[in-house]
Amino acid sequence: MPRKVDHEARRQEISEALCRIAGTRGLEGASLRDVAAEAGISLGRLQHYFGSKDEMLLFALRYINRLADQRIRESVAALTDEPSPRQVLRACLTGMLPLDEKSRIGMMVGAAYYTRAIHDEDLRAEAKDGIPKLCAFFTDQLRAAAERGELAPDRATEDEAMLLISLVDGLSAYVLLDVHTAEQALRLLDRQLARLFGDEEPHAGG
Amino acid sequence: MPRKVDHEARRQEISEALCRIAGTRGLEGASLRDVAAEAGISLGRLQHYFGSKDEMLLFALRYINRLADQRIRESVAALTDEPSPRQVLRACLTGMLPLDEKSRIGMMVGAAYYTRAIHDEDLRAEAKDGIPKLCAFFTDQLRAAAERGELAPDRATEDEAMLLISLVDGLSAYVLLDVHTAEQALRLLDRQLARLFGDEEPHAGG
Repeated sequence: MPRKVDHEARRQEISEALCRIAGTRGLEGASLRDVAAEAGISLGRLQHYFGSKDEMLLFALRYINRLADQRIRESVAALTDEPSPRQVLRACLTGMLPLDEKSRIGMMVGAAYYTRAIHDEDLRAEAKDGIPKLCAFFTDQLRAAAERGELAPDRATEDEAMLLISLVDGLSAYVLLDVHTAEQALRLLDRQLARLFGDEEPHAGG
Repeated sequence: MPRKVDHEARRQEISEALCRIAGTRGLEGASLRDVAAEAGISLGRLQHYFGSKDEMLLFALRYINRLADQRIRESVAALTDEPSPRQVLRACLTGMLPLDEKSRIGMMVGAAYYTRAIHDEDLRAEAKDGIPKLCAFFTDQLRAAAERGELAPDRATEDEAMLLISLVDGLSAYVLLDVHTAEQALRLLDRQLARLFGDEEPHAGG
């Protein structure tokens, strides 16, 4: 299927161009023409692949999220042979913080997508679909931790998973605004995980 | 100073028009001309008050934040004669969630500002200034709670304050995306506060 592969490859190249703009001057004022110029193709050619800015943004976001997923999977695989649920959870959450340039740019594309999505139901559908899936995966990890006796059973809930996801989202937003560094954000995340897993609480047998 | 007052009043009227656009179709594609039309004035007249979209957005954001501050102060004042630091903290954090239409629109203007600020140092300065002030105020409340014996002293830190601010920011973002409702976000915030204040931990003298 060379034509289909080509089509996907061109769309990825255009997404890379969009990311370069996101990483420099931002996507807010960027037109389809600007992205075409950055990708080194004509506007007509770009429109062959994407009919609108929203369509392009959605494709780019999915492409970036796929790459981020892959990076996170690799970091989980690199942990140990059998990482604990807590280690898996921490690796995933850490991967969601803008600790390197790639994830930073991913977050910027995400921010451009976000401001459009709050006013567009079709775009919002993506978030409404993706976040609950992530939340379910995190809840599974919390339950696995509780089964191993590493987490209080009443904390193995969807609410706790959603608290972690929301926290990382807020921490990341303030990294992009230079309110704190990515390293400070990671320290705060670790504090949250330590409290969740009861590291600071006195042990009964202590 | 009637002229100065007029100037301020016109700028507020324009900000209100900008908020109406933020609350309906969003600010992302909105031009100065669009805002002028919504405010019922000419573009030239609007440009007499605001030289650029960023300038207008910054004024609107400060105006909205001032109104939000006022609402929060009123809700704190309405608590009891002498609210506890924890009650003050909860009232402030609750006021930062998009629980009503006004705060929801305020968040939308904030989101439009945010996507521009991550690529503009001057706009970022506002966030870099405002968040640490809020963080300092929250830290004071945590310290006051610790002094009253209502919070473990090692939790009366800037890190804990920043965790709460980041969490509310993330929770609010997911409300605007319809991932959860404002009421669910408030429940998650309360869970975080309960854990911070040690409500769930077994008491030594239990």
